[in-house]
Amino acid sequence: MTSAIVLGGSRGIGKAISDSLKSLNFDVFAASKKDIDTSNLESVKKFLDNHNEVDILVLNTGGPEAKEFFNVTEGDWEKYHNQLFLGFCLVLQKIKINREGYVFLISSSVIKEPNPKLIISSAYRAAFSEVFKILSKDYAKKNISCINIAPGPINTDRTKELIENVDKFKKTLPMGRLGEPEEIGDFVKSIIQNKIKYLSGVTINFDGANSNYIF
Amino acid sequence: MTSAIVLGGSRGIGKAISDSLKSLNFDVFAASKKDIDTSNLESVKKFLDNHNEVDILVLNTGGPEAKEFFNVTEGDWEKYHNQLFLGFCLVLQKIKINREGYVFLISSSVIKEPNPKLIISSAYRAAFSEVFKILSKDYAKKNISCINIAPGPINTDRTKELIENVDKFKKTLPMGRLGEPEEIGDFVKSIIQNKIKYLSGVTINFDGANSNYIF
Amino acid sequence: MTSAIVLGGSRGIGKAISDSLKSLNFDVFAASKKDIDTSNLESVKKFLDNHNEVDILVLNTGGPEAKEFFNVTEGDWEKYHNQLFLGFCLVLQKIKINREGYVFLISSSVIKEPNPKLIISSAYRAAFSEVFKILSKDYAKKNISCINIAPGPINTDRTKELIENVDKFKKTLPMGRLGEPEEIGDFVKSIIQNKIKYLSGVTINFDGANSNYIF
Amino acid sequence: MTSAIVLGGSRGIGKAISDSLKSLNFDVFAASKKDIDTSNLESVKKFLDNHNEVDILVLNTGGPEAKEFFNVTEGDWEKYHNQLFLGFCLVLQKIKINREGYVFLISSSVIKEPNPKLIISSAYRAAFSEVFKILSKDYAKKNISCINIAPGPINTDRTKELIENVDKFKKTLPMGRLGEPEEIGDFVKSIIQNKIKYLSGVTINFDGANSNYIF
Repeated sequence: MTSAIVLGGSRGIGKAISDSLKSLNFDVFAASKKDIDTSNLESVKKFLDNHNEVDILVLNTGGPEAKEFFNVTEGDWEKYHNQLFLGFCLVLQKIKINREGYVFLISSSVIKEPNPKLIISSAYRAAFSEVFKILSKDYAKKNISCINIAPGPINTDRTKELIENVDKFKKTLPMGRLGEPEEIGDFVKSIIQNKIKYLSGVTINFDGANSNYIF
Repeated sequence: MTSAIVLGGSRGIGKAISDSLKSLNFDVFAASKKDIDTSNLESVKKFLDNHNEVDILVLNTGGPEAKEFFNVTEGDWEKYHNQLFLGFCLVLQKIKINREGYVFLISSSVIKEPNPKLIISSAYRAAFSEVFKILSKDYAKKNISCINIAPGPINTDRTKELIENVDKFKKTLPMGRLGEPEEIGDFVKSIIQNKIKYLSGVTINFDGANSNYIF
Repeated sequence: MTSAIVLGGSRGIGKAISDSLKSLNFDVFAASKKDIDTSNLESVKKFLDNHNEVDILVLNTGGPEAKEFFNVTEGDWEKYHNQLFLGFCLVLQKIKINREGYVFLISSSVIKEPNPKLIISSAYRAAFSEVFKILSKDYAKKNISCINIAPGPINTDRTKELIENVDKFKKTLPMGRLGEPEEIGDFVKSIIQNKIKYLSGVTINFDGANSNYIF
Repeated sequence: MTSAIVLGGSRGIGKAISDSLKSLNFDVFAASKKDIDTSNLESVKKFLDNHNEVDILVLNTGGPEAKEFFNVTEGDWEKYHNQLFLGFCLVLQKIKINREGYVFLISSSVIKEPNPKLIISSAYRAAFSEVFKILSKDYAKKNISCINIAPGPINTDRTKELIENVDKFKKTLPMGRLGEPEEIGDFVKSIIQNKIKYLSGVTINFDGANSNYIF
């Protein structure tokens, strides 16, 4: 039976991915913050004691609250360095991804078009995207596909926290709406279900035509 | 019944996409070079006389033979300007994509990492990718998704023409193999089948972790 | 004596570069549209009959008037294909750049962040940037540096044509002002004057921190 | 008198920049590791007690030894997180850059084309490039220019440590040679000397046409 671990699997995009993988009758561990808190390296290590092998891994975590550069404290940097970068590195150093498997990273559109209010997220998610790109070539030898999904504005609790007037904001978007977490869940599912393997080492904007950069 | 037109639909990646859309019981027109030759604007216009509306459009065409810059003639530039750029522009100016539809562009990984032997293709496919990106924001208003797939080394007749020793070449690739056209066909199908709409305005490398650029 | 040819050298950015090179006591040919009109291939060829060798070449030309996609005619595409792309290709195929020389391309920030009103420019300037990148590796063998400068909003007649209310527009810019053509002229001069050669194969945004893309 | 601080100013690229700024008769503080060790936050804070205002700041530091992902320890990540990222953030949070000033970041070509042996550097230098891009818009209000220089293979002690056979390596480079630190020093000097201000928010590859990515 195919096994999957979805970090941050109890809410938002992570939950949507978990649910869509469950619909394939996979053995899905939808990890909540209680199971593994990537901002706490002890929690990460404890989690890895009990989970050391998997077919499908989804690296996903919430982002920090909005904070501009001059208000970010040393403690903030260190906490989110763990949460958005180092925790994921430890996971990939320890967990064995089985042959023919998949690793998905849920990053953010801010890695390409950084956002002053999301400066922590812009920085550390970009950093981990570098690691992920490098590793994709290694994993390729075992036919493991690494796919970085970079969501734009998605209809999650987090977006509602970050955006003051969501209804007004929607009207500024090319599709006039936020993306739904289920669209990302379905996208992940459809790749796995169709055994699409040559899609690897790629960053996929998932933003309803909102970004402006050519690629 | 959902209608689809696949340009360059009789061979290689285009055929694989046509076949996968047919498996969804769509009304698929797999256009061959006889139906529409995008290097010939008269042929394009004639085709558009008979096809002026569609749900799903796949812009796809073969590339020029390998030629280094100093050997490219004025005639070559003009022919492939039509084939890889202007023909597609005329198509998009004339054909109506129905609401909730899809436009796929099959470009190439050379748009991001240009290749001296494929200089014509690098140039004009990049040019059309700019047009496509711009239009994605317009099409978004009608909930039409525009997806640019940039294939790397795929197992097609063309690759066999371009690469001298395919077996040796394969060993240099991260996955140790070429991609199969069917993987792209399945990918396109899975997006449509799952009604994934928020994936738009995006360029998706499809290259088995072969590219080196971070995004 | 060092020789230089500046296409589009009679106005705007081209003139500023010509003037700055003249201040180095170079033999500068500031070509006006009368000397060479890159939209007219016959004019290009005639020019090349009389100019077949140079130390420093600046590829620069005005852009088309603002036009959205659905209003662009076949004639527009073909004219600007010549002006922004093919004319430059012919020049580089024919003219000999001397060892230790420089080729500058003045493109535009729209190659990275395409603009619907400047769709023609976005497309063909990106196409030529691909050619230029490829050639930079060839030219490197003769220690010729190729530098693509991608200006953002610069204080030229053209900007005044394109922007309705320049004073209002300025306030939206990070520096609260347009760039001056002389800044680009000085930049080009300073690179040459200091014999900076390892700067090659690069695209340099010159936009006063206006672009949003990370690179 | 114009003041400048160059971090990592006692060797390699940093020294070359210091020397070139000294040639302009600026008051240059070429900080060595003894003055400020960005991997040690206490050292950073102490430095900032004595340097809280400057006209020109150059953020520069050596990189970590080559190490592949699975050999990087938690201690390595944390050390270089400080050295390549957090130390620089603290500096920018505390030091006042005077109006009309400059901030240069010396990053690396690996931020765009990440390198498995330089995975730590690829990650954290990319992270800081995000921060730097965001801040460039803020600094622009005071007419401070932020320029990210991303060197490729430069003739420094570090390159000799990283590359086994430098002579063999050189032959693989488009220019057949490494870049010289003095070329970067001269480049920085020429920008400042010519008061080029509209060049800001930009990442400039400085790699002798070695990179393959289009931009």
